[in-house]
Amino acid sequence: MGNRSFAVVENEIVKPGPGEVQIKVAFCGVCGTDMHIFHGNMDQRVEMPITIGHEMSGVISDVGDGVIDFDKGQKVVVRPLDNRGEKPSDKGHSHICKELKFIGIDSPGAMQQYWNVPSFVLHKLPDDTDLKLAALIEPLAVACHDVRLSGLQEDEFAVVLGGGPIGLLVAMVASQTGADVMLSEVNPKRIKLAQSMGFKTINPIESNVADIVKERTKDRMADVVFEVAGVQATVDMMTEIVGIRGRVVMVAIHGAAKKVNLFQVFWKELKLIGARVYEKEDYETAIALITENKLPFEHMITAVEPLSDIQKVFEGIDENPDGMKVLFDCQK
Amino acid sequence: MGNRSFAVVENEIVKPGPGEVQIKVAFCGVCGTDMHIFHGNMDQRVEMPITIGHEMSGVISDVGDGVIDFDKGQKVVVRPLDNRGEKPSDKGHSHICKELKFIGIDSPGAMQQYWNVPSFVLHKLPDDTDLKLAALIEPLAVACHDVRLSGLQEDEFAVVLGGGPIGLLVAMVASQTGADVMLSEVNPKRIKLAQSMGFKTINPIESNVADIVKERTKDRMADVVFEVAGVQATVDMMTEIVGIRGRVVMVAIHGAAKKVNLFQVFWKELKLIGARVYEKEDYETAIALITENKLPFEHMITAVEPLSDIQKVFEGIDENPDGMKVLFDCQK
Repeated sequence: MGNRSFAVVENEIVKPGPGEVQIKVAFCGVCGTDMHIFHGNMDQRVEMPITIGHEMSGVISDVGDGVIDFDKGQKVVVRPLDNRGEKPSDKGHSHICKELKFIGIDSPGAMQQYWNVPSFVLHKLPDDTDLKLAALIEPLAVACHDVRLSGLQEDEFAVVLGGGPIGLLVAMVASQTGADVMLSEVNPKRIKLAQSMGFKTINPIESNVADIVKERTKDRMADVVFEVAGVQATVDMMTEIVGIRGRVVMVAIHGAAKKVNLFQVFWKELKLIGARVYEKEDYETAIALITENKLPFEHMITAVEPLSDIQKVFEGIDENPDGMKVLFDCQK
Repeated sequence: MGNRSFAVVENEIVKPGPGEVQIKVAFCGVCGTDMHIFHGNMDQRVEMPITIGHEMSGVISDVGDGVIDFDKGQKVVVRPLDNRGEKPSDKGHSHICKELKFIGIDSPGAMQQYWNVPSFVLHKLPDDTDLKLAALIEPLAVACHDVRLSGLQEDEFAVVLGGGPIGLLVAMVASQTGADVMLSEVNPKRIKLAQSMGFKTINPIESNVADIVKERTKDRMADVVFEVAGVQATVDMMTEIVGIRGRVVMVAIHGAAKKVNLFQVFWKELKLIGARVYEKEDYETAIALITENKLPFEHMITAVEPLSDIQKVFEGIDENPDGMKVLFDCQK
């Protein structure tokens, strides 16, 4: 990778070490971060060659010494945050501690048949969990974290800026609160998909988002905005469409500083809230949502491909901006 | 004004209307906003000619029909927010309601001998209140609001970026919480004044603020930053010097959008909190602080001038960036 190439290799299956479990990986989704690594954008952080992947589901196939809470055959997902470097200066926020290692970026990930991980990153799944859907738990937990930090209430109006995988999941979780949710997206195919999932959508190329929000909220404007697109246009929009004391959740990763209308932040007493990855409780919420399976999660999965086709699949994602979530079947 | 000129005029003293009181104005401070009006920067908002001024203290000299809570001789200050245009879409935040009229900008202010105002804007002062110090209550209430919205705790570390009048008052109120407070300012005379008031200061031209904060907090970085300067350099600094889950209170008025490091907002899960004017409870806190008079408020007042010299005084403020708060004696 980094040079945009994957090698499919056969390795010996390694026994899990003390405190580790071995997972027979079922499915692993491709995240935007994986694409960044593929493109070489993260070469400074990622040591090559590496096995990537962190949006996974699987079944425990072996258990190392000292692991008492898990048994073979248990369905699990991994919360890929290795926070063993946590320090007092992190003030207890271990999920974003300074020395955080993200498993699948800073250490080997799930795009392999058998994966050894420390047992503290595991969450158990009920036996009847659909392992394909369970591969969505990691990105869904991101959405649960974003919505939780927003404090969104059922009588409020929320706008999600950006209708990619995370935007759609944020919209789903936000809707679960009972709030009125609208999704703003420019790609017509993504708009169509969002509509098929039951979302109210708006295309800012065709309509004035602020005018529509104003009308729908009777001048109150949005109570919460999720900025998931990461472009200047949505940064401009976020402070415009939010009302007095509104909250703007910063979900997107901004590679470069953006111009922010700080006058509006002051004038309307806005809160801009940074939200990154997830905490334990967000995983628990995400697992409950996937297990209940009452949301249109299946619509998110636009392809399931054999892991052995990894090179072709990554190249295909580059050529298809309309696709949503691609999963690897890690046993094929 | 607008053309940088004041006229000192003699008018008949007008009886207060129903629901109004007449205040014999004692002192009135010059606010940055008054300077903006003087410079013509607010000509679009301000209808000329107008009497400005809103940082005042005074004594009730007459009472209109229907006013039952106030009597002649009562010392008062005005909370200059006319929120009679409040609507449901303001969600109960009347102090920043969309139709808010700021008295002294959108309607006549306190730089006159006798001033009629609706009684709902009044706060009573104890009889022994020093009316010079009481003219600081309005800007002090801004600082109380900023610190309250920051949620600053006694075991935390706060940095105030900008050592003008509001910055100094924010630093004073922040120190009252028991928190460790540092003030960053570039003007050597203002630094000297802040030091004489007992503040720890830092000059970002001479020292690296981030390094010093890092050392003082043992890598935790600031828990709270108050951005009171309103320039790109402090906007860059605010996201750099704040630690994990830190809060940045946006106090300054930014005329133009600024580049904000949104990656840091996301990465450290920061909260950027807009804070504008004050609420009733902030005025009550400010009145209590002035009445107790345990903070170095006197140091803030660098001159007391007769109102009849208004033209000369405004021109003098322009020529003296080192000064802090100038008060008018409105009876001279």
